Amino acid sequence: MTIYKFQTAEHIVAGREVVDNINEHLTLLNLPIKHALLITQPALVAAGAVEKVEKALEAVGITVDLTTDVEPEPTLENIERVFSETVGVKDYDVLIGLGGGSILDTTKLLSVLKTNDTALENLLGTDLVEKAGLPTILIPTTSGTGAEVTPNAIVTLPEQELKIGVVSRYLLPNLVLIDPTLTTGLPKPITAATGMDAFTHALESYISNKANPISDMFALESIRLITANIVTAYQNGADLDAREKMLIGSMYGGMALTAAGTAAVHAMAYPLGGKYKIAHGVANSMLLPHVTQFNMDAMVDRLACVAGPMGIDTKNLSSEEAAQAVVDKIKELTTVLEIPQDLREYGVEEESIESMAVAALEVKRLMDNNPKTLDKEDVKSIYRKLLV
Amino acid sequence: MTIYKFQTAEHIVAGREVVDNINEHLTLLNLPIKHALLITQPALVAAGAVEKVEKALEAVGITVDLTTDVEPEPTLENIERVFSETVGVKDYDVLIGLGGGSILDTTKLLSVLKTNDTALENLLGTDLVEKAGLPTILIPTTSGTGAEVTPNAIVTLPEQELKIGVVSRYLLPNLVLIDPTLTTGLPKPITAATGMDAFTHALESYISNKANPISDMFALESIRLITANIVTAYQNGADLDAREKMLIGSMYGGMALTAAGTAAVHAMAYPLGGKYKIAHGVANSMLLPHVTQFNMDAMVDRLACVAGPMGIDTKNLSSEEAAQAVVDKIKELTTVLEIPQDLREYGVEEESIESMAVAALEVKRLMDNNPKTLDKEDVKSIYRKLLV
Ligand SMILES: NC(=O)c1ccc[n+]([C@@H]2O[C@H](COP(=O)([O-])OP(=O)(O)OC[C@H]3O[C@@H](n4cnc5c(N)ncnc54)[C@H](O)[C@@H]3O)[C@@H](O)[C@H]2O)c1
Ligand SMILES: NC(=O)c1ccc[n+]([C@@H]2O[C@H](COP(=O)([O-])OP(=O)(O)OC[C@H]3O[C@@H](n4cnc5c(N)ncnc54)[C@H](O)[C@@H]3O)[C@@H](O)[C@H]2O)c1
Ligand SMILES: [Fe+2]
Ligand SMILES: [Fe+2]
Repeated sequence: MTIYKFQTAEHIVAGREVVDNINEHLTLLNLPIKHALLITQPALVAAGAVEKVEKALEAVGITVDLTTDVEPEPTLENIERVFSETVGVKDYDVLIGLGGGSILDTTKLLSVLKTNDTALENLLGTDLVEKAGLPTILIPTTSGTGAEVTPNAIVTLPEQELKIGVVSRYLLPNLVLIDPTLTTGLPKPITAATGMDAFTHALESYISNKANPISDMFALESIRLITANIVTAYQNGADLDAREKMLIGSMYGGMALTAAGTAAVHAMAYPLGGKYKIAHGVANSMLLPHVTQFNMDAMVDRLACVAGPMGIDTKNLSSEEAAQAVVDKIKELTTVLEIPQDLREYGVEEESIESMAVAALEVKRLMDNNPKTLDKEDVKSIYRKLLV
Repeated sequence: MTIYKFQTAEHIVAGREVVDNINEHLTLLNLPIKHALLITQPALVAAGAVEKVEKALEAVGITVDLTTDVEPEPTLENIERVFSETVGVKDYDVLIGLGGGSILDTTKLLSVLKTNDTALENLLGTDLVEKAGLPTILIPTTSGTGAEVTPNAIVTLPEQELKIGVVSRYLLPNLVLIDPTLTTGLPKPITAATGMDAFTHALESYISNKANPISDMFALESIRLITANIVTAYQNGADLDAREKMLIGSMYGGMALTAAGTAAVHAMAYPLGGKYKIAHGVANSMLLPHVTQFNMDAMVDRLACVAGPMGIDTKNLSSEEAAQAVVDKIKELTTVLEIPQDLREYGVEEESIESMAVAALEVKRLMDNNPKTLDKEDVKSIYRKLLV
């Protein structure tokens, strides 16, 4: 790797109850803010997070419009509809996304749809956004996609049975607020799946062909924080310390993937999300142990370096043994976290595998990052491991 | 620590010979660039770095003006004079700083002096800059201050016998280029002193009262990279791998101090620079082992955590022993790197110590970060250790 790059959100503010003082942190933007659009989902209304944000903003005279119409893993059509009902017809000084990756990605897209006079479908791909968007504030409530610090936004295309990314520096937000008090009510299965998604970002970035000294630091620290805290966050959701470390760990996962990119796990997850509506975190968590086992012989030394940050005692282990211990520990985590193991539960059958493999191999942007080349038979045999 | 923040340069591009393709990376700024001012020093002209940058820019039709009038550790008067001869009387699309901390800090200040209609003395302090400056590109050639990623710029005030900081988010640059090929000619004593300055940024951030999960990651990785590479960079300056890791390590030191702040070493170094013209890196390197030894009992556990990243085998060590091993290793490094040990060489005498201590204690912004409170006698007795 000769040349490597890094970019991130303009401002990051983290800590417990940061959101309660959102007005204070708004001054970092140095913008006149009168009207804000809050983009969120019903679960965050129920959790009280929406009210917190609204109150803090209204206390400083900011009017807040609310939309809760973004669906999980939104389709192109859903995002365009929300656009046409909100940002498309009204002017806002700032867009605030409060939610998981689905909300954060949508907020990023609404921002650039407002300033770039084009349809969303013309932005699908890399560097097709021409102008900076409206100012954005992203508040992640899963840990998670790390989408608050990535230049990516993922759109579901149900007809093509695919998910596809918009990649542009203009998707990076102006302000990120990391507040663990918002995540204590995250349901157990979502905690598990989104946490393993974050772990996957870090691990795939670390073994990516584009890995570099910048992505490596974020990746290893992300792996360390997530491995040490995910089981506690899962078993005792109210543990604020574990929740805070998970949020920081998932943010670092996003930073790692920004610098290096994800690989085959993510490529193979897209058809599962696009066609079978399997949640992104679940799809990744299911695939991760099997893809890592497949990759192992191509990256024994790299994988061995992950053992220490995962808390594995490597004193008497060879590189091969340490690398295998990493895979075993990942398998152990997916068991403890009760990650689904059977694609049939989601309607996937043996007959589906061929077209899924074709679709996965089409995600070349990510497949190219994988340390070991996968042919169609490789992809199919990995999917088959999940047909129990 | 409840609330913690992070911000950095807009774009960072790193790798060998990145500067040769500067025109390619300029597109990241998405600005029309016709006229650039290159701010640098004679040593970088001699090293051939200036010609490289000029050629690459002129090849894409950018006209380049050059100034080499910034002195090392520039005074307020020097910066204002350079301003009035360059940016003050001519319009540039971008300012490019190519050099050590002295150049990077000056470039940052020239940028905001252009857009904020006020004298430099009115900007000394925290958050006194009101408007964003001209776009800046910073290319560090020492490893170093990390100034390419900090919101700080340090100004020498010879009359007050002090150095004082301008702190503002508007000092962060638009683009940072990290190119180790520019640092292979850095003279041995500057390699040693600036490298230990970078180490000091990381260590002081790690033990700072404002340390937090974000600064800690950067600090420990900075400590790891610098400890593993500084002796090689010193003894074999042409070693590109060591030079690259030193540049990344010093950049992380800058990120750590942005998030947490430096402490007593830096506060005590300011009078040495302001009055006795001791180079910033030299002053810090001289003070570091003694201040760390003084601090030790207030932060045994923290210091013990630094042992691993410094490559110390902690298997059979208590916390106290590991912490002492850290201090010993720092002392060993200052010996191997031939850091000066005697303030008398610079004209400091016993009679100077009282006023130096008063001045150091006035740098409250940094002294407040120190994990152990220093009174005047503490400061004096540390300075006295350097009167051999
Ligand atoms: N931009 C990127 O870099 C990036 C990276 C990975 C994934 N993604 C995308 O992000 C999306 C997935 O995001 P996700 O995994 O965060 O899930 P999500 O945003 O779809 O959220 C899952 C569910 O959890 C609910 N929820 C969120 N926070 C909650 C809380 N604190 N308490 C209770 N319920 C809460 C949501 O309302 C939703 O129903 C996918 O579209 C995926 O492709 C983007
Ligand atoms: N902004 C910040 O966050 C921050 C942090 C720490 C220190 N500083 C400030 O930075 C300044 C010190 O910067 P520094 O330690 O980098 O030293 P410097 O910039 O003063 O450089 C020292 C000398 O080395 C020469 N030089 C630089 N690069 C070279 C190269 N590649 N080859 C040959 N010669 C080279 C310079 O021309 C100069 O003569 C001080 O004013 C200090 O207070 C700022
Ligand atoms: Fe993901
Ligand atoms: Fe310094």
